Amino acid sequence: MKFASFAINDTPSWGLVEGTEIADLGAILRDRFPDLKSAIAADALKEAAAAAAGAKRHPLSAITFLPVIPNPDKILCIGLNYETHRKETGRSEVENPTVFGRFANSQTGHLTNIIRPRVSTDLDFEGELAIVIGKPGRYIPRSDAWQHIAGYACYNEGSVRDFQRHTHQFTPGKNFPATGAFGPWLVTPDEIDDLGSLRLQTRLNGEVVQDATINQMIFDIPRQIEYCSSFTRLEPGDVIATGTPGGVGSRRTPPLWMKAGDVVEVEIDRIGLLRNGIADEAV
Amino acid sequence: MKFASFAINDTPSWGLVEGTEIADLGAILRDRFPDLKSAIAADALKEAAAAAAGAKRHPLSAITFLPVIPNPDKILCIGLNYETHRKETGRSEVENPTVFGRFANSQTGHLTNIIRPRVSTDLDFEGELAIVIGKPGRYIPRSDAWQHIAGYACYNEGSVRDFQRHTHQFTPGKNFPATGAFGPWLVTPDEIDDLGSLRLQTRLNGEVVQDATINQMIFDIPRQIEYCSSFTRLEPGDVIATGTPGGVGSRRTPPLWMKAGDVVEVEIDRIGLLRNGIADEAV
Repeated sequence: MKFASFAINDTPSWGLVEGTEIADLGAILRDRFPDLKSAIAADALKEAAAAAAGAKRHPLSAITFLPVIPNPDKILCIGLNYETHRKETGRSEVENPTVFGRFANSQTGHLTNIIRPRVSTDLDFEGELAIVIGKPGRYIPRSDAWQHIAGYACYNEGSVRDFQRHTHQFTPGKNFPATGAFGPWLVTPDEIDDLGSLRLQTRLNGEVVQDATINQMIFDIPRQIEYCSSFTRLEPGDVIATGTPGGVGSRRTPPLWMKAGDVVEVEIDRIGLLRNGIADEAV
Repeated sequence: MKFASFAINDTPSWGLVEGTEIADLGAILRDRFPDLKSAIAADALKEAAAAAAGAKRHPLSAITFLPVIPNPDKILCIGLNYETHRKETGRSEVENPTVFGRFANSQTGHLTNIIRPRVSTDLDFEGELAIVIGKPGRYIPRSDAWQHIAGYACYNEGSVRDFQRHTHQFTPGKNFPATGAFGPWLVTPDEIDDLGSLRLQTRLNGEVVQDATINQMIFDIPRQIEYCSSFTRLEPGDVIATGTPGGVGSRRTPPLWMKAGDVVEVEIDRIGLLRNGIADEAV
């Protein structure tokens, strides 16, 4: 099953993706599940999908995609989690995942523009696999981790590198409005039989700039869930952006920055293709 | 005016503090302002205070204090913002504030216990002045910054130092549940005539462990608001924890960790006294 958050006629909703259409579940289930997060929290995705037969359909071309989870309590980003990226940054090996946070208002949806802020030209891409937490928990052992995942999506963890490097803490460069693209939809785990073998590719204006498989992560998904849940309670709808492979623009010579008019894509086999334009911030 | 968030009979509410009592504004204004954040967002604190005459009073001894803002969209923490603390950590001088985030679920209120997690003994205090954003904004110039402040409170930015130092990113050590104490209440700016001269003191079991004045900050409050609003839109109820002075337990020889049975206080002149016990996490 694939679920997306979207707006139509400026009204936010969510629904079940079926081919080139979406069944508007928000319109019929709003009283119980006003958004995708609340349906996840109620463990009601199967029930919601069953209700899709009676829902109005919109063509995907008619909706505005919102971030898969527009309102997560937490977005935990794993840094330096592919060896190719760790090496290009010159960072040391560590025994625990590197974690920093994004706030929800830094996100944007599929087919929207990622915004280059007026205060920087150093806008970089980071193609990633995102996991969305279903069942909440604290101190989740690795062996139980898979049971806590509601689904997967693509994430472009857009980074403003000069602000990221103002100090040793990444937060400023990771939280500009409309830099974290999250989409196109949530794919439930039953659709994926071998997650590790899936290919993650980032393309900028059609050129492949990042290319890896999920099993090349340094800290695998169970370890990420174990570690994150050791310092915070994971809640339904929480997002873990699982890290980006080598190839980022800032580590190239000369650097490859995203600029107005560019098109950036993050594609993961069986999960989806997240496409965004780049636009300058309106002055 | 002083406003607090609290629970009574397990029902969350908020109100106006008057001496040893609190006028329960949530009980009479809930339809319009379900929480303190929503009253701030509507710029309705004066109006709410005027309604206090008709509100039921509770003795402060009867309520459970909640974090001043239990549900902020963002908690932005400024690191290394007093020279005494920067020097004790051995960090270099920087041109911009160091910023990292806390998530809302790491907070706790006045007179509750800060929880030492079962996975660490390295629980440290950080007494701080917190500001709460009133008027939202992006790219706020320093000259306008004061107009965006709804009020002040004390913050104990409790830190689990081993997790903070697992990697170069502080996030894990700064987000354990019930480690960020925020209280006792919000004091509106009209009650403060010379913020810089106010004394901030942290005491552990009655012994003074941090002692500074607000004007000893490296990056002052207008600069913090200018910088934070350059990378994110500040929203009503957002919290900026403005940094801690020297004296933290982790930089002492031997280290001074907080443990079950301790009492930690953060007091700022004219703003309030935030007191918390320490308890071990229930197993």
